[in-house]
Amino acid sequence: MILLRSHIGLVLRSSRVEQGRTLRDVAKSARVSLGYLSEVERGQKEASSELLNSICSALDISLGEVLQSVSAQIKVQETPTLIVVDDAA
Amino acid sequence: MILLRSHIGLVLRSSRVEQGRTLRDVAKSARVSLGYLSEVERGQKEASSELLNSICSALDISLGEVLQSVSAQIKVQETPTLIVVDDAA
Repeated sequence: MILLRSHIGLVLRSSRVEQGRTLRDVAKSARVSLGYLSEVERGQKEASSELLNSICSALDISLGEVLQSVSAQIKVQETPTLIVVDDAA
Repeated sequence: MILLRSHIGLVLRSSRVEQGRTLRDVAKSARVSLGYLSEVERGQKEASSELLNSICSALDISLGEVLQSVSAQIKVQETPTLIVVDDAA
């Protein structure tokens, strides 16, 4: 099943890792606990809209960008896989 | 403050209204309570990822489409308003 929180977590984590930052650093800057941020990144907890904004601020990314990446990821997952069978082979 | 839950609610509500369906009908089909759906639509409650999927199913729309509309709405809200002053006037 495609879960919104998993995709939000993936996008937040990849953004943090790209910036070479630690969970501790981003959690402190977003004023959330390290455990909370870790659970959100792993898709184990739904981030409230307010804390999602804090995490985006801490990462210096816009919520719109995060959601755009999330929707792109979800659309790829929703697309049925096409298997091409090459009869000529 | 831009809140994800408000934008998700707006997109779900406009989709339901476009289809000419009632809260009662969609809530029943999504197996959520009418009060819950109403609160989600008004941005007063964070929908869990699982129930968001149920609501999307009930509306026969994909989560990817919902998130695409949500990200577009949020990006518009994030864009600073440009006021053009026409000196020639």
